[in-house]
Amino acid sequence: MTRDACVALDRADVLAPLRAQFALDAADASGLVYLDGNSLGPLPRAAAARVRQVVEAEWGDGLIRSWNDAGWITLSQRIADKIARLVGACDADVVVADSTSVNLHKVLSAAVQIATADAPARRVVLSERTNFPSDLYVADTLARQHGLQLRLVDADDVVAALSRDTAVLLLTHVDYRTGRMHDMASVTRAAHAAGALMIWDLAHSAGAMPVELHGDGSPEGSADFAVGCGYKYLNGGPGAPAFLWAHPRHTRRMDAEGWRQPLAGWFGHATPFAFAADYRPAAGSARFQCGTPPIVSLAALECGIDTVLAAAALGGLAALRRKSVALTSLFIALVEQRCAGHGLMVVTPRETEQRGSHVAVAHADGACAIVQALIARGVIGDFRAPDILRFGIAPLYTRFVDVWDAVDRLAQVLASGEWRDERFAVRATVT
Amino acid sequence: MTRDACVALDRADVLAPLRAQFALDAADASGLVYLDGNSLGPLPRAAAARVRQVVEAEWGDGLIRSWNDAGWITLSQRIADKIARLVGACDADVVVADSTSVNLHKVLSAAVQIATADAPARRVVLSERTNFPSDLYVADTLARQHGLQLRLVDADDVVAALSRDTAVLLLTHVDYRTGRMHDMASVTRAAHAAGALMIWDLAHSAGAMPVELHGDGSPEGSADFAVGCGYKYLNGGPGAPAFLWAHPRHTRRMDAEGWRQPLAGWFGHATPFAFAADYRPAAGSARFQCGTPPIVSLAALECGIDTVLAAAALGGLAALRRKSVALTSLFIALVEQRCAGHGLMVVTPRETEQRGSHVAVAHADGACAIVQALIARGVIGDFRAPDILRFGIAPLYTRFVDVWDAVDRLAQVLASGEWRDERFAVRATVT
Repeated sequence: MTRDACVALDRADVLAPLRAQFALDAADASGLVYLDGNSLGPLPRAAAARVRQVVEAEWGDGLIRSWNDAGWITLSQRIADKIARLVGACDADVVVADSTSVNLHKVLSAAVQIATADAPARRVVLSERTNFPSDLYVADTLARQHGLQLRLVDADDVVAALSRDTAVLLLTHVDYRTGRMHDMASVTRAAHAAGALMIWDLAHSAGAMPVELHGDGSPEGSADFAVGCGYKYLNGGPGAPAFLWAHPRHTRRMDAEGWRQPLAGWFGHATPFAFAADYRPAAGSARFQCGTPPIVSLAALECGIDTVLAAAALGGLAALRRKSVALTSLFIALVEQRCAGHGLMVVTPRETEQRGSHVAVAHADGACAIVQALIARGVIGDFRAPDILRFGIAPLYTRFVDVWDAVDRLAQVLASGEWRDERFAVRATVT
Repeated sequence: MTRDACVALDRADVLAPLRAQFALDAADASGLVYLDGNSLGPLPRAAAARVRQVVEAEWGDGLIRSWNDAGWITLSQRIADKIARLVGACDADVVVADSTSVNLHKVLSAAVQIATADAPARRVVLSERTNFPSDLYVADTLARQHGLQLRLVDADDVVAALSRDTAVLLLTHVDYRTGRMHDMASVTRAAHAAGALMIWDLAHSAGAMPVELHGDGSPEGSADFAVGCGYKYLNGGPGAPAFLWAHPRHTRRMDAEGWRQPLAGWFGHATPFAFAADYRPAAGSARFQCGTPPIVSLAALECGIDTVLAAAALGGLAALRRKSVALTSLFIALVEQRCAGHGLMVVTPRETEQRGSHVAVAHADGACAIVQALIARGVIGDFRAPDILRFGIAPLYTRFVDVWDAVDRLAQVLASGEWRDERFAVRATVT
C-alpha cells in the first residue's frame, strides 16, 4: 500500500462526494486529519445556514409565531422520522429529546418496570464492565431506585451471564473504547431466550452503519428499547439532542395501561396545550418527550442527519459500512506495518463483523502523550483512559488518504520519540 | 393618559436604551407590538453573532478542540454564575442544564428524600391547583414513585394547607396564567415553620424582577430549591436550557452522604473524564448535571442573560421591577378605561406586590378569537385556556407606547366586534 494507492481508492469511491457536505475547509487548508468524529461530528455546511435562518429569521423576526409558522412544534418528530430510517425503526417509535443519559433513564425505567411486572423474581440489570460510564451510572442509579442490582461482566461473558435473574440486558452496540461491536441480532435473541428485555445504546453505531432494531422482523429478534447520540456519527453539533426508540409492542401496552414515564413533562402529554391539571400520556413513544424542545439545537441536528441520509442515494447504509470496514482495515494494516516495535497494540477486533467504525490502539504508558503529539502534527484522534489512542473513522467524510496520512504521522511520532517531550505530558480536560 | 404621554414616559425612562439590545427591527418596521416575551423572549442582537461564531468557527473550524480551546467545558458554569446574580444565589449553587421539567424532577426528588428522611410521616407534596401543568405532572409522577401524594389547593389556601403531613411545598413564583405573584419570603417562612421544604419555580419571574432565594439571609427565610426557564424573561431562545438551584445546606449534606440525584449522568460525576465505572457525584450542585451540555443553545442563552445583566448597570433589577409595575399598572388602567363594556375582566391582581410582569384579562367566550384578531392587528399576546388573554410585559424592551398601542388596538378589536369573524375561530396549535 502506498499513499498514491490511497488517492486512487478515494478517486474510485462512490461515496467520496459526501465529504463536500461538511465545512472542513479550515481543516483541509491546514492539512488537518480529523479522526474524532465519533466524539464530535464536523459541521455540515447546511447547518451553518440553517441555524442562521432559525436564529435570525425564525426566532428574531418570527418570534413566538414560529412555533406554528416555522413548524417548530413538529420539528422533533420530523427529525425522529429521519433517524428511524437509519436504525430500521418505524417513524412514530423514535423520539428526539434530551440527552442520551436522560433518555436511557426513561427507557430503562420502562424496561425494568415491564420486566419485573411480568417476572418479579428478575432483579438484575446486566451490562458490560466496559460499557460507557454514563450508561453505567444511569443504570446503577435506576436499578437501586427499583431495588434491583446492576451486574457487570466482561464483554465475552455477556450471553453466558444471562439467567432467570436478568430483567434487562443493557449494551452499547459498539464499545466506546475498543470499537468492538456486538452482533445485535444474536445477542437480542439470547436476551429474549433468557426472558430478559434488550436495550441497545447506539451512540457509536447509528450513522456509521446500518442498524436494524427490528432484526429479521421476528418478535425474538427485535430489540425492546434503544437510545442514541446526536453529536457523533449523526453530526448534530456539540451536545446535540439525543434520541430513543421503544418497540411498539411495549408502547401499545403502555397505552393500554396508561403508563407514564418517570419524567412526565408537558411535551409528553396527550394534549399539552389544553393545560390540563391531570397528566395523560401521549400515545406511543411520544410520551417519552418531556420539556420544551430545543429548537436551535434540533435544527442543527436535522442537518447532521441529512448528511447521513444523503448516503442512501449513493449506495445506502450498506455502502457506508463497506467503506467503513475498508478504512478501519486499512488503518489496522498500516499501523501493524509501519508502527511495529513501538509498543502499540491494536485493541479493535480484527474480525470485521466484530468491529465498529473506530480503531483503538493501546500503548502502556504513552497513550495520552502520543495523542497530544499527533495533534501537534495535525492528526486529531483522542485518548481514552487509561491506555487507549482512539481514531474515529467516519465513512461519510474520512478518506483513504486521511488514514494513510494519520498512520504516517503516527509512525513519525513514534520513530522520533517526540511524544516523550514534556509539552505533551499535559493532559487536556476533554478529548 | 394619552399616547403622547406614553412617548414622554419612554423618553424619560433610563432603561429605554436596553431595548436596542434586541433584534426587533422587523417588528418595529411592521408596527408589531410584541407582548409574548413571557413565552419566548426576543432575539438578542449579540446572540445572532455569537451563535454564528460557535457554529461556524468553534464547531466548524475548532472541531473537538473547542471543548478546551473555546471553553465549552466551563460554559454552563459561566452561565450559571450569571443566573446566580439574578436570583440572589451564590455562583456554585446554580446549574444550567436540561429543561425546567427535568430539573424539577431532580430537585423535587432531592427535596422529597431529604424531607421524608427527616420526617417519614410527611407524605404530601403540596402545590397550587393552577400551577403550570408540567410542574404538576412532574410532581404527581415523582410523588407516586416515592409513595407520596400530590395535594393541590387554591392559591389563597396554600399557607393554610401546610401541615405536619407536608413534605414539600412547590410553587411557581408568578402564576403563568393570572400573573399573580407569591410573597416569596413570607411563603418560604410559612413552609419552614410547618416543617416543609420550599421549592420555587422562577419561570415567570427570573429576569423580570429581583428574586432573592436567600430571602433576608436567615435559614428560615431561605428557600431550599428552585428551578427556572431560559427562554422567557432570560431571552435564551426557543427551548433554551433551564436552570436549577439548591441551597448549600442541602448539597453539603448530599456531599457528606454521597447522595446521587436520580439522573446520575457523566457530567454530574466528580471526574467525568476519568471514565470510572463507579459513579461518584460531583460536589455541591454540580451533581445535578447529567448529559453532555448543549453548547449552541447555551451560547444563545448566555447572550440572553447578558441582556438582563445589562440592566444592572442602568439602575439594577429594582429599576427593572419598577418599570414593570408601571407598565402593567398602565396596561390595567387603560384596559379598564378603554375596553369597558365588552365583557373583559382583569384577572391579574391590582395590588402591585401581588403582581408579576404580565397582565391576564379574561373573556368568557371570546378569549382565543380576540387574541387571534389582535395578532391580525399586530399585537402579539397569547391565549391560555380556557378564557385568558395574556400580555407579557418585559421591562427590558417593552415600552409605554407599546402598552398604549396594544390596548388601543384591543379596544378597536372589541368595539368593531371583528373578533367574531370566522377566520379567528381557528385556534393555533401553540401560543
